[in-house]
Amino acid sequence: MPQLRIALAQINSTVGDVPGNAQLHVDWAKKAAQAGAHVVVFPEMSLTGYPVEDLTLRATFAQASRQAVDDLARRLAEAGCGELLVYIGYLDLDEVGPRDAAAALYGGEVVARQFKHHLPNYGVFDEQRYFKAGRTLDVVRLHGLDIGMVICEDIWQDGGPVTALGQAGVDLVVAPNASPYERSKDDIRLPLVARRAAEANAPLVYTNLVGGQDDLVFDGDSIVVGADGELLGRAPQFVEHLLVVDLDLPAGGHSAEGEFEGMTVRRRVLGSEPVPAYEPIAEAPISEPLSDEAEVWSALVVGLRDYVQKNGARSVIFGFSGGIDSAVSAALAVDALGPDCVYGVSMPSQYSSEHSKADAAELARRLGCHFRTESVADMVRVYVDQLNLTGLAEENIQARTRGMLLMALSNQEGHLVLATGNKTELAVGYSTIYGDAVGAFAPIKDVFKTHVWELARWRNAEAEKRGEMPPIPENSITKPPSAELRPGQLDSDSLPDYPLLDDILDDYVEGDRGYADLIAAGFDAETIDRVLRMVDHSEFKRRQYPVGTKITFKAFGRDRRLPITNGWREGTQR
Amino acid sequence: MPQLRIALAQINSTVGDVPGNAQLHVDWAKKAAQAGAHVVVFPEMSLTGYPVEDLTLRATFAQASRQAVDDLARRLAEAGCGELLVYIGYLDLDEVGPRDAAAALYGGEVVARQFKHHLPNYGVFDEQRYFKAGRTLDVVRLHGLDIGMVICEDIWQDGGPVTALGQAGVDLVVAPNASPYERSKDDIRLPLVARRAAEANAPLVYTNLVGGQDDLVFDGDSIVVGADGELLGRAPQFVEHLLVVDLDLPAGGHSAEGEFEGMTVRRRVLGSEPVPAYEPIAEAPISEPLSDEAEVWSALVVGLRDYVQKNGARSVIFGFSGGIDSAVSAALAVDALGPDCVYGVSMPSQYSSEHSKADAAELARRLGCHFRTESVADMVRVYVDQLNLTGLAEENIQARTRGMLLMALSNQEGHLVLATGNKTELAVGYSTIYGDAVGAFAPIKDVFKTHVWELARWRNAEAEKRGEMPPIPENSITKPPSAELRPGQLDSDSLPDYPLLDDILDDYVEGDRGYADLIAAGFDAETIDRVLRMVDHSEFKRRQYPVGTKITFKAFGRDRRLPITNGWREGTQR
Repeated sequence: MPQLRIALAQINSTVGDVPGNAQLHVDWAKKAAQAGAHVVVFPEMSLTGYPVEDLTLRATFAQASRQAVDDLARRLAEAGCGELLVYIGYLDLDEVGPRDAAAALYGGEVVARQFKHHLPNYGVFDEQRYFKAGRTLDVVRLHGLDIGMVICEDIWQDGGPVTALGQAGVDLVVAPNASPYERSKDDIRLPLVARRAAEANAPLVYTNLVGGQDDLVFDGDSIVVGADGELLGRAPQFVEHLLVVDLDLPAGGHSAEGEFEGMTVRRRVLGSEPVPAYEPIAEAPISEPLSDEAEVWSALVVGLRDYVQKNGARSVIFGFSGGIDSAVSAALAVDALGPDCVYGVSMPSQYSSEHSKADAAELARRLGCHFRTESVADMVRVYVDQLNLTGLAEENIQARTRGMLLMALSNQEGHLVLATGNKTELAVGYSTIYGDAVGAFAPIKDVFKTHVWELARWRNAEAEKRGEMPPIPENSITKPPSAELRPGQLDSDSLPDYPLLDDILDDYVEGDRGYADLIAAGFDAETIDRVLRMVDHSEFKRRQYPVGTKITFKAFGRDRRLPITNGWREGTQR
Repeated sequence: MPQLRIALAQINSTVGDVPGNAQLHVDWAKKAAQAGAHVVVFPEMSLTGYPVEDLTLRATFAQASRQAVDDLARRLAEAGCGELLVYIGYLDLDEVGPRDAAAALYGGEVVARQFKHHLPNYGVFDEQRYFKAGRTLDVVRLHGLDIGMVICEDIWQDGGPVTALGQAGVDLVVAPNASPYERSKDDIRLPLVARRAAEANAPLVYTNLVGGQDDLVFDGDSIVVGADGELLGRAPQFVEHLLVVDLDLPAGGHSAEGEFEGMTVRRRVLGSEPVPAYEPIAEAPISEPLSDEAEVWSALVVGLRDYVQKNGARSVIFGFSGGIDSAVSAALAVDALGPDCVYGVSMPSQYSSEHSKADAAELARRLGCHFRTESVADMVRVYVDQLNLTGLAEENIQARTRGMLLMALSNQEGHLVLATGNKTELAVGYSTIYGDAVGAFAPIKDVFKTHVWELARWRNAEAEKRGEMPPIPENSITKPPSAELRPGQLDSDSLPDYPLLDDILDDYVEGDRGYADLIAAGFDAETIDRVLRMVDHSEFKRRQYPVGTKITFKAFGRDRRLPITNGWREGTQR
């Protein structure tokens, strides 16, 4: 059977940086050529980054993207990659409108150009706002093998372009993707890709983007699956990688053109001469998927690192309270940026406990990051005295003087401020707007409190396995959580126990379940009422909260769009 | 010709408050019945409010909406409105998915039910995220007249449901709408409705929602247009209103059913007996449209009032700086809520000028609102001394101590904080995040600086016309703008002159024009570069800014969705 060496270039594009991304394509295509590949497949919209959101509507941006495709074809040929068939993703614009497009470059030219057929418009996706759907399928013949392409969502839909390619006949299908990470999503990708490969009656090559973009992170995890469903190659998660796989393909000599399932199949022959026999790679390059905890941790690290670095910052600063949230955030920041780029500030008030101050210092010692103590007592006192503050106003001013202190240090020294709130707090509004909510980025925004503890234990255990110092002080994990805004305050004074609270939030926020469902799930009516009211009343706080990495099915932000002004109350209809 | 009296109930629904909205329907239907109307038409999604965003995906909410329709049919009959044909808008949910629906209620029953065909997914609209499209058209015969219905966007699309109704034959078309206000939009509604009436060969009844919902405000401006394009009635803008119009209609005795333009027309006869001859209303009730300034002012007043009141607040508090933005915001707040619900705070620092303090006090005197002075000098000093702040850090801490001061008073006294920034500032990032950007709502967020001045002059002139005290001190209008964060600082030190700046922003933000277009428009290359960089670098600030009323074609917020992490720079391609 004819042989073919295919490479999957799992790269980390930056949204909007077309020149930088184009250079990435040249660099990785050269690596693919050096590795002896005949075909290299980049991710969806690899040239523009993904998602570019309303940049799609900027004609100058679309034109720059189109122009960059032509330039890239020429540059690749000049760089000695003219014999390499290069699939890239980009933004196109034609008389119908903007297109989520992929192109095949070969011999200095664009030899095929195809637009995404299925445009997702749910969850974090707004593609029907941006793109017009394609209806053509471009098959090219290289070394006698017929190669079709589909883009991302096109493989998630039944009866779509893969079905049409299967009917028309292809020997190989390539699929550029930009599929945002969420927990356990990779469990469904492999069976899906296997099913589509069977439909195409050909191997399927799935290249996914890697890296962070605002609230999204892409995990790579690119795969090649045979027509029989066998996994032929898998790239590691969360790192740039060139996956090289050798295929033995029966050349079908397919020639059917025209309409299939309402789509138009077109063909172009680049070359029919089979590749001379060569020695294939000895073993299929199959990376092991990460464990659930490692996967989440990596997602949070990459999401944070790319936000900081792609926005031109070098260092981060945030409060070290001695609690679990700031401890986990600090461990993530050190893993993402290194200890020299992390600045912790202990900001005690009169209500701060000795153990909080000690735990914060211990955290910094373990991490080896920068650390200082700045009391907010004087700042708080001016406000409290001048305005005669009491109760909630006095509690909040403590959190807010800390937020201002961090912003002042950020202005003075140039660090980016992180907010260390977790998803549970954000859900029920257990945070102070303009206080602990201050920051450019919120690394654990989408991590429920019980999950924060799990990650802390996992990260410490990993360190122990590697013979390293566990980064998070045991006391920060085991002590009862407190905001320490009044004497002896505990989270449990205001909130149900976290395991119960997270269970309810999982049903209400992630599952969009209503009152009756929650009752049926066995929760107590009064607790449901209390939790749902807290969630509903906190929408205004969430709107002004910084972005942070999505890791769950439904993250706060563009994933869950609720009105602030909202008279709906679950349970009032019963 | 048979007569028919039709009423348009231009109501202010609250998103999510199904029981409250249902009561509004009963109240206004009774008014329509008392006015002798045979038909009353409510706006799109009048029962749920609009837009309900992700509440659409909550099954319990959709079920409550469906149930409320049946209950309402019964309640209307019990309230003596059983002979009145009542068109309402609501959220439906069937086996296909959620629906943007309208129903006709008559004799205690739902006699027709139709789903929106065209689902807008641009600008502020995400309807393809939420709804499945309808393909049926329900025509009912009442008093021998055949009445069809279409929903909002259905009249904005060519070759849509109105064309099908025209082909099948109807005597009248009713169109529930929820069409958000933007400047000059009413100029295009009347010709559009007239064109559709001609296509239907029947009068068209267009009922629009009124009131504020987060960043949107609906202006009412409901109209009735004859088949010949004649304007037969128009409701006033920005107020709840029952518009009653008498029609003389040739009964066409239409009976065609089945497929028209790919849609299914169904018919149901409620009654064929013509209305006994009655004395029509002497004069067509045609309200004059507001002037451009009055329209914008009303939009801002209603948007602010409804945000405050629908969120259960009573009063607002914000900084009175002596400048134009806080002065216009204060005048709006007093017009929206009355002087007793407005709390102004002068917060001088060491750099505040005497005229600023005097102008702030004069503003409060003219408005008759609450006013106090709280120096931030002591708060600023603690930060500056403890952290050795200089430069930008020292400037920002002044703005931030003010933000904290307002939040503390809000916590202590229960007022809602307003942010008084304008669209120009927000565009170029000329504001301090967590400083002057603090607030739950930003009333002039979508008003360019030059437009703020125009509105101030207009509002003062209106007061003079009415023999009232002009609310805004002349000095606040005429003095050169300054943030007063360092000695002698002027906005013009950091920004191009506002008329030039607003011109560029209008092209870049509203028009999505690129570098070449801006050069072609005659702007200076260096100024373009400077302004565009400021806009692009401020996205993170805009994301955390409070919501405020949209009045332009493209408001910051859901109308303009740009990535924060964004390597695209206009002009770098040249």
